[in-house]
Amino acid sequence: MPNPTAAMLVIGDEILSGRTRDANMYHLAGKLTEAGIALEEVRVVSDDQPRIVAAVKALSEGFDYVFTSGGIGPTHDDITADAIGAAFDAAVDVREDARALLAAHYAKTGSELNEARLRMARIPEGATLIDNPVSVAPGFKLGNVHVMAGVPSVFNAMVESVLPTLTGGAPLLSETLRVDRGEGDLAGPLGELATAMPELSFGSYPFQKDGIYGSNIVVRGTDRAVLQAALAKLSEMLRL
Amino acid sequence: MPNPTAAMLVIGDEILSGRTRDANMYHLAGKLTEAGIALEEVRVVSDDQPRIVAAVKALSEGFDYVFTSGGIGPTHDDITADAIGAAFDAAVDVREDARALLAAHYAKTGSELNEARLRMARIPEGATLIDNPVSVAPGFKLGNVHVMAGVPSVFNAMVESVLPTLTGGAPLLSETLRVDRGEGDLAGPLGELATAMPELSFGSYPFQKDGIYGSNIVVRGTDRAVLQAALAKLSEMLRL
Repeated sequence: MPNPTAAMLVIGDEILSGRTRDANMYHLAGKLTEAGIALEEVRVVSDDQPRIVAAVKALSEGFDYVFTSGGIGPTHDDITADAIGAAFDAAVDVREDARALLAAHYAKTGSELNEARLRMARIPEGATLIDNPVSVAPGFKLGNVHVMAGVPSVFNAMVESVLPTLTGGAPLLSETLRVDRGEGDLAGPLGELATAMPELSFGSYPFQKDGIYGSNIVVRGTDRAVLQAALAKLSEMLRL
Repeated sequence: MPNPTAAMLVIGDEILSGRTRDANMYHLAGKLTEAGIALEEVRVVSDDQPRIVAAVKALSEGFDYVFTSGGIGPTHDDITADAIGAAFDAAVDVREDARALLAAHYAKTGSELNEARLRMARIPEGATLIDNPVSVAPGFKLGNVHVMAGVPSVFNAMVESVLPTLTGGAPLLSETLRVDRGEGDLAGPLGELATAMPELSFGSYPFQKDGIYGSNIVVRGTDRAVLQAALAKLSEMLRL
């Protein structure tokens, strides 16, 4: 069985303007790899409804799972719920169970559940809520799209809420061989081995450190023993 | 005049597998913002020719400038030049000026210009080379697509080579106001101000630090005085 596939949509001008360095993509990529789900595409788009709608539709059709990050807070630039609703032709309105979560939370903290905060209870019809143990305002899942917050601590918590609901495959393992030679010196044998073992994925990542040109050879697959055998074979071919 | 638009395509399994945290997107985003070019979309795709071709076509048609990162080295997984050639229906072959650059470099360092390294001189027909002052093997530009290396030090150097060739707009400036209140308490006035000043872009980024819930309000535009006036107005509305 091939591993299930996934895509991520990061919604946020703060990444595109260079103000913030991505953290959520990196976090999700690691978690999905552990779960045996292959993250195959990420898109980052600005806070613009037509762009979000187009990306959600394309990714939802193309991959088993989609995860979004950002745009579900209380301010005017939080337009993700409406965009997801538009993508799925689902009405978006304040939902009673989400409102109750917020009401209980703000009663406890002494803040007012004002019109802005109530926006966080606006959920597209037919969605199921995603638990937010950090700041209560929920994410939601509609179709195969999981809509989560952009603040990394909240995003990470929502990922933990979602992971047990996903059907993963065999965990995607990797083994790395560091070779202190330039890529051009090992590309030949590496290419031969990659052709001979098409069930594995071989990547080569050059580095330069302390004046040394080297390469990290990373092999990926689902069977640790096979990965280790592949790298042993490569070492032999390179006479390491 | 609106600012020119840009998109980026990151080619690399190492980002999607969670092995590596993105650095190139963050770097380019900051440089383009300084140059007055609006980065409006980023896609990250795996080392898969059909996916790269589809993404390059879509981004090349949709934006003024496109920048790619990754996949132009000497190993079997470096397939970007062929993918760009396929996207533009351009033949790809070893080019004499690129070969001469590599030959001179490897003669100096005492390495062999073998078949693998010669792959780095394979350039789509009609492209112009992008200078690589770090490790010599060039990037290239075809149409509005700038093809650059994935190794951050090389990517950054190529960005410096490319920037003087781009036509930027007025630099995209931002000013930030930190407010030690939750977003829900300032969303109302912020939304009003954003509606009243549609020429500016207002973003709100919540944070939680030392037990305080706060928000960074970021306003973006091209006139520093207008940005500062907008944040002064917001402070007044919030009675800060």
